[in-house]
Amino acid sequence: MERPRPRRGADGCEEPEGPAVTTPSALDVLRALLRCPSVTPAEGGALDVLQGWLEPAGFAVHRVVFSDANTPDVDNLYARIGTGAPHLVFAGHTDVVPPGDAASWTHQPFAGEVADGMVWGRGACDMKGGVAAAVAAALAHVAERGAAMRGSISFLITGDEEGPAVNGTAKLLDWARERGERFDACVLGEPTNPSRMGEMIKIGRRGSLTGEISVEGRQGHVAYPHLADNPIPRLMRALDALKAEPLDAGTAHFDPSNLEVVTVDTGNPSANVIPAECRARFNVRFNDTWTPATLSDEIRRRVAAAGVGAHRLSFAPCNALAFLTEPGAFTRAVAEAVEAETGVAPALSTTGGTSDARFIVRDCPVVEFGLVGQTMHAVDERVSVDDVAALQRIYGRVIAGFLSP
Amino acid sequence: MERPRPRRGADGCEEPEGPAVTTPSALDVLRALLRCPSVTPAEGGALDVLQGWLEPAGFAVHRVVFSDANTPDVDNLYARIGTGAPHLVFAGHTDVVPPGDAASWTHQPFAGEVADGMVWGRGACDMKGGVAAAVAAALAHVAERGAAMRGSISFLITGDEEGPAVNGTAKLLDWARERGERFDACVLGEPTNPSRMGEMIKIGRRGSLTGEISVEGRQGHVAYPHLADNPIPRLMRALDALKAEPLDAGTAHFDPSNLEVVTVDTGNPSANVIPAECRARFNVRFNDTWTPATLSDEIRRRVAAAGVGAHRLSFAPCNALAFLTEPGAFTRAVAEAVEAETGVAPALSTTGGTSDARFIVRDCPVVEFGLVGQTMHAVDERVSVDDVAALQRIYGRVIAGFLSP
Ligand SMILES: [Zn+2]
Ligand SMILES: [Zn+2]
Repeated sequence: MERPRPRRGADGCEEPEGPAVTTPSALDVLRALLRCPSVTPAEGGALDVLQGWLEPAGFAVHRVVFSDANTPDVDNLYARIGTGAPHLVFAGHTDVVPPGDAASWTHQPFAGEVADGMVWGRGACDMKGGVAAAVAAALAHVAERGAAMRGSISFLITGDEEGPAVNGTAKLLDWARERGERFDACVLGEPTNPSRMGEMIKIGRRGSLTGEISVEGRQGHVAYPHLADNPIPRLMRALDALKAEPLDAGTAHFDPSNLEVVTVDTGNPSANVIPAECRARFNVRFNDTWTPATLSDEIRRRVAAAGVGAHRLSFAPCNALAFLTEPGAFTRAVAEAVEAETGVAPALSTTGGTSDARFIVRDCPVVEFGLVGQTMHAVDERVSVDDVAALQRIYGRVIAGFLSP
Repeated sequence: MERPRPRRGADGCEEPEGPAVTTPSALDVLRALLRCPSVTPAEGGALDVLQGWLEPAGFAVHRVVFSDANTPDVDNLYARIGTGAPHLVFAGHTDVVPPGDAASWTHQPFAGEVADGMVWGRGACDMKGGVAAAVAAALAHVAERGAAMRGSISFLITGDEEGPAVNGTAKLLDWARERGERFDACVLGEPTNPSRMGEMIKIGRRGSLTGEISVEGRQGHVAYPHLADNPIPRLMRALDALKAEPLDAGTAHFDPSNLEVVTVDTGNPSANVIPAECRARFNVRFNDTWTPATLSDEIRRRVAAAGVGAHRLSFAPCNALAFLTEPGAFTRAVAEAVEAETGVAPALSTTGGTSDARFIVRDCPVVEFGLVGQTMHAVDERVSVDDVAALQRIYGRVIAGFLSP
């Protein structure tokens, strides 16, 4: 699929003919992306926007649709320029969470408006801003180096990060691996800064394991408790046992693992009846001292030791293992680029939720750095115009450093 | 409403004219009652059956219908013979719980069949059997004494015991009090024997108080627990505090009060989200060391001391206070009648659920004694034909003793 190359001079006039190629700014790309209503799983034109810029610049662009019996079809994009090593890949997603009530936004969620030094819209920080800065930085690098460019730059962009994450990055990586693609390092542009640009790089993520415990008792009338067996105090004993001792003390790079009971439900409508069953669901965010297998063993051990009696304990399939990119040359290079542009030495963190980085670390080291995430998933999601430009410069430094001889 | 007086000789022939009046047996009355499908709030013909026997025997019968905006109309019956003291009242109900699937009954639930020494049907033990035995005993006493009868016998029969208990005994007592009725003692024929006739008299009942606690937290993502406030561990702390110490040690006549948590509910569908609220409902069966007011104060105190944080604690309106008929002449008379007919010295108990006795104790001492309750509210509810006859004889002794000079 061929698209006309956008030709936009800084002054809005036709570009002059000649060797100096003008490439779009991160803000240009971001505003175009924000105008695409790409709520998961809709592509919404966002991948078309990227393809429209990457293909004319020389990238080989592949659109790959993955299907699954239980989940909607998802459109994904893989683009590469260069054939040799080193190979730097920018990963990300253009899908966004729903905007909620558009009427409560100060500026329309899919208009890409700029006001008060900010660019507004659903996905501005999570993570069309990160994708736009990477594309703009890559286009500038390609334009500047021309045929002299060393190594390869790729984009691995999914439309299924905010959804079930089944037909996205994981399958796209399998697809790339089968094609013989080998990556040396990855930058993922999720919004990593809690409140201001430069604060935080993520070099790992905790894993996530969800379990459910159901305690069985014997139903009966509350007036005859000795003839019944109330499962609720026994479930409370199980939950106490899960929370009583810390799972671990954390590591040099990770916070202690944390278990939260997210729901307890009985559904007994009658105040006169002792219920037959009560169930709870819990989620553990775990560091790399655990695997899903060792962690579920420990949870089973704790519940068994608490003397809970008849119960069922099960775990949801876990595709979110803990991972860590050990601090080294690549993390240092990204941190130095961040500090050079922001004046802030970023923390190397492993906090927060899961991200698609968990799939990519099987292939190569991954560092996550993006915009300020304060308004992500909220009404009036927005990022600073200056931050978007700074992120483009940071990515430009990372590319130049990684692809230099 | 006048009904023809049933005239049934023991051999099924016409009765001879003369002073010897044949009265129905408890089994006769019970089988007639069992054929009435009087599932709460339906009268089902059951009160008509009673009126048909009581009125011709000289009882002044009143049918009193109570209504309420939120509950169905309920038909009740009050009948009295005699005008003076002492005044013995038999209380009870002819309404029954639904039979469930009639196909799973060995004998039809509303057929009043006799087989294998048992009489079968919904309500046989709870408590058409008790009502039938009392009516048969009273009719026999009246027939035997004739004009020489001393004191008064009444029936206070409701159709709303198995339902909301709003338009039944409580209102019927108010109605009787307004008419100037004064009772000296009451026998309530609920099935009090756990497994065999004569085991147990009830001289009191525990009260019942239902409360609900809702703990409020702050919703958030499980990956950022420090930004959220999970209400579930705090609710568990509250429930622990409610159960940690016994409410009391019981009394000479009462078991210790007992609290059961009957339901805990969150309704959070997402394993990634820490919920904003979690609630639990509990029920306390309490003895006469508490009133609803002192008990709810103690519960509030325990929750406050547990440091549960933001929460709401509320109690359902309580019409089930604990009560005790102190052992004395009346309880002794009933116990002696039971022992004389069964050979068993009955325990004086306060166990089990609530009953309409809680309303009547405001007017006079109440003793509960009836059939064996093993099959109450179950499929194949039934009572022994011999037990029904024994209960009539026991009630006969109580009447004769109480109304003797
Ligand atoms: Zn994201
Ligand atoms: Zn009953």
